[in-house]
Amino acid sequence: MLADTVDRTDWKRPVNAKKSPDGPVPSLETVRCAIDLELRAGLDEASERFSEHSARAIVDEVARATLPQGGRIRPLLCCCSYAACGGEGGMLDRRIVAAAASLELLHTFALLHDDVMDGALTRRGAPATHIRAAQEHRQADLAGDHDRYGTSVAILAGDLALVLSDLMLASSGFNPALLAQAAEPLGRMRLDAIAGQFLDLTHTGRGVTDAGLASRIARLKTAGYSVEGPLMIGATLAGGSGPARAALGEFARPLGEAFQIIDDLLGMFGDPAATGKSAENDLREGKPTLLMTRALAMASPQDRDAILSVWGQAPATAAALEELRLTVARTGALRAMIDRVDDLLSEARGALQNPQACGLEAEPVQLLIALTGFLRSRADRLHHLIPEQTP
Amino acid sequence: MLADTVDRTDWKRPVNAKKSPDGPVPSLETVRCAIDLELRAGLDEASERFSEHSARAIVDEVARATLPQGGRIRPLLCCCSYAACGGEGGMLDRRIVAAAASLELLHTFALLHDDVMDGALTRRGAPATHIRAAQEHRQADLAGDHDRYGTSVAILAGDLALVLSDLMLASSGFNPALLAQAAEPLGRMRLDAIAGQFLDLTHTGRGVTDAGLASRIARLKTAGYSVEGPLMIGATLAGGSGPARAALGEFARPLGEAFQIIDDLLGMFGDPAATGKSAENDLREGKPTLLMTRALAMASPQDRDAILSVWGQAPATAAALEELRLTVARTGALRAMIDRVDDLLSEARGALQNPQACGLEAEPVQLLIALTGFLRSRADRLHHLIPEQTP
Repeated sequence: MLADTVDRTDWKRPVNAKKSPDGPVPSLETVRCAIDLELRAGLDEASERFSEHSARAIVDEVARATLPQGGRIRPLLCCCSYAACGGEGGMLDRRIVAAAASLELLHTFALLHDDVMDGALTRRGAPATHIRAAQEHRQADLAGDHDRYGTSVAILAGDLALVLSDLMLASSGFNPALLAQAAEPLGRMRLDAIAGQFLDLTHTGRGVTDAGLASRIARLKTAGYSVEGPLMIGATLAGGSGPARAALGEFARPLGEAFQIIDDLLGMFGDPAATGKSAENDLREGKPTLLMTRALAMASPQDRDAILSVWGQAPATAAALEELRLTVARTGALRAMIDRVDDLLSEARGALQNPQACGLEAEPVQLLIALTGFLRSRADRLHHLIPEQTP
Repeated sequence: MLADTVDRTDWKRPVNAKKSPDGPVPSLETVRCAIDLELRAGLDEASERFSEHSARAIVDEVARATLPQGGRIRPLLCCCSYAACGGEGGMLDRRIVAAAASLELLHTFALLHDDVMDGALTRRGAPATHIRAAQEHRQADLAGDHDRYGTSVAILAGDLALVLSDLMLASSGFNPALLAQAAEPLGRMRLDAIAGQFLDLTHTGRGVTDAGLASRIARLKTAGYSVEGPLMIGATLAGGSGPARAALGEFARPLGEAFQIIDDLLGMFGDPAATGKSAENDLREGKPTLLMTRALAMASPQDRDAILSVWGQAPATAAALEELRLTVARTGALRAMIDRVDDLLSEARGALQNPQACGLEAEPVQLLIALTGFLRSRADRLHHLIPEQTP
């Protein structure tokens, strides 16, 4: 938001600078760092503004939910897509960095609200915002309903993150006509996320075994929101050609599905110390994931009964959930899903194997390919034991 | 959102049409009707889109919270301000109607989330969204926490309303450069509302008797968000001159304060059958309103103790609250606030008494003046008995 006033020449690149200290194109780490600086600057400006009203603490909540180093996958996809489509200034252009960073604030909004809706207890290794705010309220022995206070803080911090996201994009420095074009994929991405979350909300805990529904939720919440949206916003802001956008779309589809499957796997088999979130919540809530619907489809009648007797039972013990994990692994679904991720990522890479033919820049495309590897590496955070117990 | 495709020529006016069936300028009722048609069209389009994902029910929630005839004060202020600043096409111009309607969706977002945060039970005469959704979930005996489900539906419907508001404005048909200019007052309006809500949240129920704080909350939540924001967005989209905007600013300040006081009065002395919301919630929650801080300042030591022993006590009985109302009226604060409203509204009208001198169009200014009367008439919904018992 301070895009025009803060001095960030240290990381700002001249147009199409190919010879930087990082070599021909910046590394993903450099882009991530630029995005973090932008987020920090935007949040600092908001803090200053809210301090005037003695309301700075709510900006602190947004900062706390945003600044701890996350994967920044959505902003990275956006910057790389922009550069791949020949966007002016390349992927460290100050404008695309601001536009991309705005997607991270959008994600903060989604996480804060989703955690309330899902009743999540932890996020990024710490208590979820609504939980911590309620605890603070309780410890200070303040009047009113502590849990409602915590929920209110998370709702309001999420709202603020969304509004700040809008402002950061609007003041990114792109000309208004381009921003107006980007409103279309951005609007779709937001609507998809809401539709997906609504389906999630209304079907969680109802023992849904319909793979079609799980797949629709995955398409909306992850493929559309986390992958296709950011790629298309970058391409639009770069003024990318039809063939370039089509190739990025071909890349997005399998990548989005792989992203969702990895999320499902981590939500069930992830090591909480590495993922920062509980590996029990999705199970207790009975979330209709691709993994669970696959497991139910592949299970023996006996295993199927065993799964359905624990899945979606809020009071299930940790031991029962561990048993549930073993049963799911035994069905072969875990192995099948990991194989499916590898196939999908390979399909995604295939869509970009001939960048020049569709008018994409080769070097940023290499970073998109590198991102598929980064995503795959998240699956390394799965509990070690479990995969070995699969047939 | 269907601004460019839906046929709404029935109410669309030619540029600066002065001779319409309504006379020289349309009536407030005509403008309100145009805004409602726009809201309906936007929500219909969203319904269609969400139906594809079997997620239409969440759009229905937004529609239910938006379509019952409300005052539409914010959109009306926006349309009138646009026309007063000489905006092309006047106040029924299709573009300004869409931009103005987007402010009503923004308001739906605020109401849905505020009702969760405030623990409100009713809204517009019916159960608040989070309460009704929880009841439906309970009655259908669905798995999971019913109250959390209700809260989730309200959060998500609010999020959707905000996203739809953005889309409606973006597709209003104004050129992107003008929309980019309007992003500034719109951003300010949203941030003010959030800052005000945060102060409200953190000070409610803490027996705050600080008039400065109550006044800051009122300035942020109502003056900025409900009055100044809509007026400035209309003026910006019309390309209004400096003097015209300054005069509208002078109009906005006292009008905003009057609006807030009337809200406080209705929140405490309003007839729920007429206001559609409980007259107990603000009292039980202990909201730091201008009215309460004034009452505490004017009260005898005995009345002050009586007020503080009930105000902000969630379990207070209806009889105790009625007694509290009588005590507040006895302090003279009720009378003083009603007088203050009349002074403020007169000050607001004074700011626009010479429209031509500041380059404002006379006829739309008459509608702005008429709006002050409409606002004042809301105070007629106060319980009849109470004012008569004031000294």
